[in-house]
Amino acid sequence: LLYIQPIFSYNPFMEKDIEKAGFLVEALPYIREFNSKTIVIKCGGNVLNMKEIRKNIANDIVLLWYVGIKPVFVHGGGIQVTKFMERLGKKVEFDEGMRKTDKETLDITEMVLGKINKDIINLINQSGGRAIGLSGKDDRMIKVKKISKDIGFVGEIKEINPSILKILDEKGFIPVVSPLGVDDEGNSYNINADLAAAWIASHLKAEKLIILTDTPGIMEKTEDSSTLLSSLSLRDIEELKNKGIIKEGMLPKVDASKIAIEKGVKKVHIIDGRIPHAILLEIFTDKGIGTEIIK
Amino acid sequence: LLYIQPIFSYNPFMEKDIEKAGFLVEALPYIREFNSKTIVIKCGGNVLNMKEIRKNIANDIVLLWYVGIKPVFVHGGGIQVTKFMERLGKKVEFDEGMRKTDKETLDITEMVLGKINKDIINLINQSGGRAIGLSGKDDRMIKVKKISKDIGFVGEIKEINPSILKILDEKGFIPVVSPLGVDDEGNSYNINADLAAAWIASHLKAEKLIILTDTPGIMEKTEDSSTLLSSLSLRDIEELKNKGIIKEGMLPKVDASKIAIEKGVKKVHIIDGRIPHAILLEIFTDKGIGTEIIK
Amino acid sequence: LLYIQPIFSYNPFMEKDIEKAGFLVEALPYIREFNSKTIVIKCGGNVLNMKEIRKNIANDIVLLWYVGIKPVFVHGGGIQVTKFMERLGKKVEFDEGMRKTDKETLDITEMVLGKINKDIINLINQSGGRAIGLSGKDDRMIKVKKISKDIGFVGEIKEINPSILKILDEKGFIPVVSPLGVDDEGNSYNINADLAAAWIASHLKAEKLIILTDTPGIMEKTEDSSTLLSSLSLRDIEELKNKGIIKEGMLPKVDASKIAIEKGVKKVHIIDGRIPHAILLEIFTDKGIGTEIIK
Amino acid sequence: LLYIQPIFSYNPFMEKDIEKAGFLVEALPYIREFNSKTIVIKCGGNVLNMKEIRKNIANDIVLLWYVGIKPVFVHGGGIQVTKFMERLGKKVEFDEGMRKTDKETLDITEMVLGKINKDIINLINQSGGRAIGLSGKDDRMIKVKKISKDIGFVGEIKEINPSILKILDEKGFIPVVSPLGVDDEGNSYNINADLAAAWIASHLKAEKLIILTDTPGIMEKTEDSSTLLSSLSLRDIEELKNKGIIKEGMLPKVDASKIAIEKGVKKVHIIDGRIPHAILLEIFTDKGIGTEIIK
Amino acid sequence: LLYIQPIFSYNPFMEKDIEKAGFLVEALPYIREFNSKTIVIKCGGNVLNMKEIRKNIANDIVLLWYVGIKPVFVHGGGIQVTKFMERLGKKVEFDEGMRKTDKETLDITEMVLGKINKDIINLINQSGGRAIGLSGKDDRMIKVKKISKDIGFVGEIKEINPSILKILDEKGFIPVVSPLGVDDEGNSYNINADLAAAWIASHLKAEKLIILTDTPGIMEKTEDSSTLLSSLSLRDIEELKNKGIIKEGMLPKVDASKIAIEKGVKKVHIIDGRIPHAILLEIFTDKGIGTEIIK
Amino acid sequence: LLYIQPIFSYNPFMEKDIEKAGFLVEALPYIREFNSKTIVIKCGGNVLNMKEIRKNIANDIVLLWYVGIKPVFVHGGGIQVTKFMERLGKKVEFDEGMRKTDKETLDITEMVLGKINKDIINLINQSGGRAIGLSGKDDRMIKVKKISKDIGFVGEIKEINPSILKILDEKGFIPVVSPLGVDDEGNSYNINADLAAAWIASHLKAEKLIILTDTPGIMEKTEDSSTLLSSLSLRDIEELKNKGIIKEGMLPKVDASKIAIEKGVKKVHIIDGRIPHAILLEIFTDKGIGTEIIK
Repeated sequence: LLYIQPIFSYNPFMEKDIEKAGFLVEALPYIREFNSKTIVIKCGGNVLNMKEIRKNIANDIVLLWYVGIKPVFVHGGGIQVTKFMERLGKKVEFDEGMRKTDKETLDITEMVLGKINKDIINLINQSGGRAIGLSGKDDRMIKVKKISKDIGFVGEIKEINPSILKILDEKGFIPVVSPLGVDDEGNSYNINADLAAAWIASHLKAEKLIILTDTPGIMEKTEDSSTLLSSLSLRDIEELKNKGIIKEGMLPKVDASKIAIEKGVKKVHIIDGRIPHAILLEIFTDKGIGTEIIK
Repeated sequence: LLYIQPIFSYNPFMEKDIEKAGFLVEALPYIREFNSKTIVIKCGGNVLNMKEIRKNIANDIVLLWYVGIKPVFVHGGGIQVTKFMERLGKKVEFDEGMRKTDKETLDITEMVLGKINKDIINLINQSGGRAIGLSGKDDRMIKVKKISKDIGFVGEIKEINPSILKILDEKGFIPVVSPLGVDDEGNSYNINADLAAAWIASHLKAEKLIILTDTPGIMEKTEDSSTLLSSLSLRDIEELKNKGIIKEGMLPKVDASKIAIEKGVKKVHIIDGRIPHAILLEIFTDKGIGTEIIK
Repeated sequence: LLYIQPIFSYNPFMEKDIEKAGFLVEALPYIREFNSKTIVIKCGGNVLNMKEIRKNIANDIVLLWYVGIKPVFVHGGGIQVTKFMERLGKKVEFDEGMRKTDKETLDITEMVLGKINKDIINLINQSGGRAIGLSGKDDRMIKVKKISKDIGFVGEIKEINPSILKILDEKGFIPVVSPLGVDDEGNSYNINADLAAAWIASHLKAEKLIILTDTPGIMEKTEDSSTLLSSLSLRDIEELKNKGIIKEGMLPKVDASKIAIEKGVKKVHIIDGRIPHAILLEIFTDKGIGTEIIK
Repeated sequence: LLYIQPIFSYNPFMEKDIEKAGFLVEALPYIREFNSKTIVIKCGGNVLNMKEIRKNIANDIVLLWYVGIKPVFVHGGGIQVTKFMERLGKKVEFDEGMRKTDKETLDITEMVLGKINKDIINLINQSGGRAIGLSGKDDRMIKVKKISKDIGFVGEIKEINPSILKILDEKGFIPVVSPLGVDDEGNSYNINADLAAAWIASHLKAEKLIILTDTPGIMEKTEDSSTLLSSLSLRDIEELKNKGIIKEGMLPKVDASKIAIEKGVKKVHIIDGRIPHAILLEIFTDKGIGTEIIK
Repeated sequence: LLYIQPIFSYNPFMEKDIEKAGFLVEALPYIREFNSKTIVIKCGGNVLNMKEIRKNIANDIVLLWYVGIKPVFVHGGGIQVTKFMERLGKKVEFDEGMRKTDKETLDITEMVLGKINKDIINLINQSGGRAIGLSGKDDRMIKVKKISKDIGFVGEIKEINPSILKILDEKGFIPVVSPLGVDDEGNSYNINADLAAAWIASHLKAEKLIILTDTPGIMEKTEDSSTLLSSLSLRDIEELKNKGIIKEGMLPKVDASKIAIEKGVKKVHIIDGRIPHAILLEIFTDKGIGTEIIK
Repeated sequence: LLYIQPIFSYNPFMEKDIEKAGFLVEALPYIREFNSKTIVIKCGGNVLNMKEIRKNIANDIVLLWYVGIKPVFVHGGGIQVTKFMERLGKKVEFDEGMRKTDKETLDITEMVLGKINKDIINLINQSGGRAIGLSGKDDRMIKVKKISKDIGFVGEIKEINPSILKILDEKGFIPVVSPLGVDDEGNSYNINADLAAAWIASHLKAEKLIILTDTPGIMEKTEDSSTLLSSLSLRDIEELKNKGIIKEGMLPKVDASKIAIEKGVKKVHIIDGRIPHAILLEIFTDKGIGTEIIK
């Protein structure tokens, strides 16, 4: 009734820019979908070793934050602890993949994780974000007890107190968390970062838990990325563990994923953190990368 | 002290996607710059005639909104009023570019603007935004008086009451405003949409006022887009008006720009609304398009 | 123990004024009863045709608002749509009381309802209220689907999104709503205003729904106001419908009343909107007017 | 363009009710004017002696409160203190109109004022209001020092702490205040209720202070109500005091008025509290009663 | 890893002060336990007779308030009412421990309780607190009905409206409450202060109700404080009542305790209010004093 | 008028407890004075070396926090950094009292300070507080630039961003801050902890800055505590510096005090942190300890 359809053609030299703007618009449905949602991102020490990737990840997190997603970052640092213990001439021992942690090893672990934590918040702040570094000891956020096996100060999570995370979230900060816990007597413990991320994700009712690691995901044949399994249910995982296809370093990631899913996180993604913008590729494109774990 | 730099090269097939993700990251500094800032966008009836462009603009506005910018949209509709008056067999008369507006013309104008207003909110809502349509009569938002020349119900703005705009903004809605005003006795008036946008922008302490029109911007020689003037100060504008280079339809846009700048809006952009994603190009790229007016 | 009772007689010339003040005090119990309660008022296009009555209703609404009641106004406009379609030389067709609504009819309906909406907010604002005009398309407030019978863009309500109404209420505005809805694809639909008012009343947990119409209420014998039925239960209504006493134009009003009551509105009143201050008479006096429908 | 003007005449038997509803609408401009404004009402003990008038005043206050005005009530009680002292066989002495107040007299005064205070809140609550009784000792609201003349515990106001009044106001209660004060050492003092009301009015930025007394207002010739002066400026008052026309019991009322006006209260009204609904007549009608004092 | 343990010995002259500071630290676990908790304290008229004790209690309440506990004080005043009735030459009569209360007795009771109330708030304010005095008539806080036995205006509690107490609490004030109630018709009633305290404690979900009285607590043999029973369950109490060990003045205290415990208060303490700092001893030391009543 | 003074003497065995309760009451005026005030406490690494003292300080801070004072804790750690550098076989060099800080020394400093920080929050949490550890890098709280002298990553403070401190304060947490800063390029710097505490104190408008050190305060003759200067003005300090009485390690403390006082902190106290409960002695007793610096 009211409008006439005129004809108009614009300058072809602008096309590249218009295409770029179009990419932004392509991301719109994903921005919409995850708006105001919490996404917990866990990144292992091995991925953090790469300087470019550290910067990249910081940038990606800040982008999520600006488009209204609420990122929480949990980091590891095992490889750096080992390196620093060697520097101090201290013997490094593992028992079934868990580090034997005497009081001195624990002190070193706290120092190294503390340093990595502040390096990450610094990169995020440098990219324009507002990050606050925390360990599980702040406000007794992660309450643990000693694991049954006696390998020193290695703890398992009993309870999460998410108060400070919720306050930081409400006030618009990006929390970055070190995997340390505290028991009822005030003793500190080393804890598994994947599990810490899973517990935190479930307490924050996170939409997703993204685990950045240094393999392409869960593969039928180790080292053969063409056998990548792109989507697995909890049942599939149980089978793959029984068959021995999921093993070693992937086991705690898969256990963490299971906990997260069972406690209400919608999806877990195990992806290759070494790919530039891996987080954005996972969240803002249709394809997805790595292995997705669902109920 | 802690990190080792390993080597890693990723799958070349992913490069296109990584590049796309990179474009998102390229927009980050602009997203940061305009975060929580209000941007008033005015779009004339002639641009709104194009269906694809209407959808495009709605999409762009929703994108701005999702990345934390606060858009306010002011529309015109002169060309549609004229078309509908002709449909009703009513004579259309102008006096120095202003429509002679008897009571019936005013009623028709209100009906047409109201319809365009709801068409726009509908498109925005369809793209995932949350738009509310208003006219300057709601909560007596735009208070006017009759202009001195007697051409009927044509008003000039005396005062803006921004309460409802501020509430919608605080509650996360996108306001879409029709250029109608009301005088102290409750009479309605047709007002110039460029000026309405300028007054609103200044009351909301907007970062930018973007005027979408159907020319590439202010050009030294009309119709020759190679003579586009990309940045003008208020003083430049005065000169160009005196020289007769700025004239006719561009005059109210330039007057509105002046009012906006003088009342504290940082920049005004007069850009070609027919270019796809013109708003995004203006805000999220370094180049900018059209003519920018600064103090 | 403390007080002495002295004697005092005041100036008889003041008596008229004291009596007036007394009327205010007489309204106190009703003001008290409805304080902070929402009352939805629906008014048909035929009642709105009368200029004095329009002003009167606006005044009454503002009075309710000032004494702490929260009015929401829903208007119709069928008669005005018909008149304007005739003006445009467009054929007006009905099917079982519902207007056949092709795309052009829909556009005209939107224009006419939009105009009536702004006329009403203007009158309310002129009386000292703070009204905001909305249609069911704003923030997708009224979600509809096409009715099964194919008579074009006529919809039935599926769902109400009361966000914007609640915000306006909390911020102290008077919402005025046009009966238009939108489907999941963003198409607009004409909807019955009585039903829109009933759905809105139930979502706002309104104390009362008052339907202003151009008859004295439900009468045993049409046109004979001495047979007015002053109070009916839902069961009574069922019977009267079966007997054919409730019929034609009264049917949608009665169906809307039923929906409202079943969804929790305490009372519905169908009253003669042409009586001056009909709303105040209904709310602030003991007698009540018209027909009251209760559970 | 849209509306038709039909003809309608309503049942003449309703006219009385419609007229009543009209009175409510007549009050609308006044309700509007004083909406959200604080009005301090002071009422002397002699007016409070009349049971009917006490009820009436409580009713009027509740009405103000329901229509969005914020009433604060300050009462006296001198006449009741005298009566009760006589009952206790205690000698009553005055020095220039001020009661000689030894410790026992002070205790009796506190008891009597406390009782009157709770009688008033009870009447207000009975009329549907939500009143809280306070003395100037609660939260050290009224800080005083002993007056220079030594007649015992008679104090003059040094400072008002309006915290609790503001909280009650914000939370929607009606404060009722007894004229007692406290000095820095925690001693209690009898204070003049007119002055207490004036200080409170100025701290609450009250729109009006209404002083209810048992004469028609300030009259040129005492006892001759035809010589009532309906509006006086502060200068007029100075003159009338010099001429001895304002004297005795009227002096503290006039001094209180002066303090209130000088500290920013817009108007003070000295009116005859014995007239039924005197408060409403003053606020909601054009005529006004008694004497108005302005700058 | 990081710390060295040096040796240091401080000035012995400081030891007394360090010991005092140590006492503060000793109180820390109790401060922690009761932080943000409400504690209702009831004190009878006989305890309030002692001037030093009144000051002491005011001080203790202010201390509780400063360390984050929320005290509410309910006072009695029977002994003072009796004294004042005698002063007025009015006959004092009791029926099964309850005062016969004709209208004049009620008026006197209100006056005396009102005076005691303001005396207490004054002492609290003088100690640095911020007290507000209330009776059960303010905002109709304590709703009662006449008891079945006809001894005049003696009421039993039907319902508590805790609004004003909650507001004062939220805003950081200390409420002091007189035991008066009001019925549906607005009549005032004398009520038992122990029961008033118990009802209030249960409505505020108080952690403790402390009843200050003039005996050491509940004793097996009256007057023999060596037979003090330090902890009793509700069942124990029933037995002791049956055996006649709990009798007379202790009965209403024990009934009040039962009501409080049954309605959710954790503990009730009946302690000797005449001991200096009895409240602090009860709350901040391990020993406790008097009789504790638990579920 | 109302009260009788009875006689009562309590059990002498209670006297010790009553005396203790009395000490609590003695602290009341100080609790009152500092209620809701911020007190910044700085503690050097040498004081923190003592395990008992660390626990004691944590306890004292929690007590302050429970009685409504807002403590902020800033710690040093120089002695621990030196010890750890030696452990790593790294040469420790100073230039005019400032540590030469190459990149590796900076990394070590960050690790050691991070560890001390988490040790302190853990002790505070163990005592019942809710502490959060921060460094000046979190949310870019402490912005610095390189000092002019080139001794590596040693910075001077340019600006404080107190956002996160204010949020933690508002939400009831105890912030514990490490003295690290960040420049505009994101480089980290070692900063002086006394100055960091002074800047933070002034930005939080702290009532007091308490510097815990390992000497009794400022003494006329070093090592002779009988020459302790208990109160000094800024002018006194200037003189004592000129005379060489204030020198070496005391210089930065005195400079920090000056900055704090000049920027609005009311008082600075330099006290012996090795005395048990030194903080409580300073705040809650009349005597005070150490040296107080005032304007």
